[in-house]
Amino acid sequence: MKALVVSATPEPQSFIASMADLSVRVLEEQGYQVAHSNLYEMGWNPVASANDFGDRKDPDYLTYALEQRHGVEGGTIAPDISAELQKLMDADLLVLNFPIYWFSVPAILKGWLDRVIVSGLCYGGRRFYDQGGLSGKRALVAATLGGRPHMFGPESIHGPIETMLRPLLQGTLAYTGMNVIEPFFGWHVPYIQPEERAQILDDYAVCLKSLDERQLLEFPSMADFSRDLHPLKPNLTETA
Amino acid sequence: MKALVVSATPEPQSFIASMADLSVRVLEEQGYQVAHSNLYEMGWNPVASANDFGDRKDPDYLTYALEQRHGVEGGTIAPDISAELQKLMDADLLVLNFPIYWFSVPAILKGWLDRVIVSGLCYGGRRFYDQGGLSGKRALVAATLGGRPHMFGPESIHGPIETMLRPLLQGTLAYTGMNVIEPFFGWHVPYIQPEERAQILDDYAVCLKSLDERQLLEFPSMADFSRDLHPLKPNLTETA
Repeated sequence: MKALVVSATPEPQSFIASMADLSVRVLEEQGYQVAHSNLYEMGWNPVASANDFGDRKDPDYLTYALEQRHGVEGGTIAPDISAELQKLMDADLLVLNFPIYWFSVPAILKGWLDRVIVSGLCYGGRRFYDQGGLSGKRALVAATLGGRPHMFGPESIHGPIETMLRPLLQGTLAYTGMNVIEPFFGWHVPYIQPEERAQILDDYAVCLKSLDERQLLEFPSMADFSRDLHPLKPNLTETA
Repeated sequence: MKALVVSATPEPQSFIASMADLSVRVLEEQGYQVAHSNLYEMGWNPVASANDFGDRKDPDYLTYALEQRHGVEGGTIAPDISAELQKLMDADLLVLNFPIYWFSVPAILKGWLDRVIVSGLCYGGRRFYDQGGLSGKRALVAATLGGRPHMFGPESIHGPIETMLRPLLQGTLAYTGMNVIEPFFGWHVPYIQPEERAQILDDYAVCLKSLDERQLLEFPSMADFSRDLHPLKPNLTETA
């Protein structure tokens, strides 16, 4: 089994760096062959642009998704994207480690998603959700935030955290077909004591060792929608 | 009245570029003094890092939000951030024009949010939602996407689009105190005919001319939560 850990933190000594190191170490102990894309250390370029394509299907007008298909088919997509895409396609498990910025991923990681999860290979046409190009892979989001659990939930000020992270959990990972494991959160990290941080790392190691027992999030199935994506059975899909 | 238009598209001839031009022109016609941050044209750097701070409160360990406060207070934050922050603080209205990438903003725009909406000035302590540092400003998200309206909604495959955009609408714009105007969407843009695109631009011009009549989205009020953000009146807050 192969895993890809993608991590993003501007501080190499940060808690997220420790979590990413732990991801690599524990998964290796579990028998995975692990690749680690440490985006800040790599100097990853997050900006999707015309420079991503060595040869253009339409040199006069950039439609990013169409050029992704053309670039992957012809082997002319930028080498930094190509290298990451290979790691992603090889992986049985994708782990994302990041501090939550604005209830979302830091820009450098957003740019990894924008550039690496290419149209055609990873999704397209009717190939999404359980028909997506990355079907069969599993994904784990393991992130830190300043907030505390009582600030998230149906009656709480920010609403459910899975709702805040829906563009990532549903709109990206599940959309491309991945099985999304219940995320792991390190709560209130900037404000807690070293022993509490050590406890979070212990809990995270347990999480990594027991991925098979961890719940998968539920998402739409293409079988419940018509060819043009009208719902076939209203009221059976999740409402929010 | 002053407005700031922030736009992000890798193709200068794209529909989003036309929408951004229209934002500037119509708002000027309405009497606004308009600044336009065209992020791709500016070569905006979206990566939050230690390089953003000319002087460090803690040179040995980067806590990004704390250094934002220190950098703003001491006037030592990076000049590119400082220039954008000035435009943001001056603006009565913020308009974001972008193509939706992964049910979210493109990385270059995420990095504008990450770096420019600084801790301290824009939010912090209990200064968020209706107590946020950007209270009194209005924000309009006007974006394009490949999807069609029937793919979004309570029973639809992707769920409500406002839920997918919640990290931006609630978690960023409302969180910092801005009044969030009902967003404008250009649907199915890559797949439609020129006359349909022209219609969307006409509709968008009407939207820009009638911002005062457009609905504001509803978000939590700090008055409904205790000092440590426990809900005071359960069941009154939105549940998803």
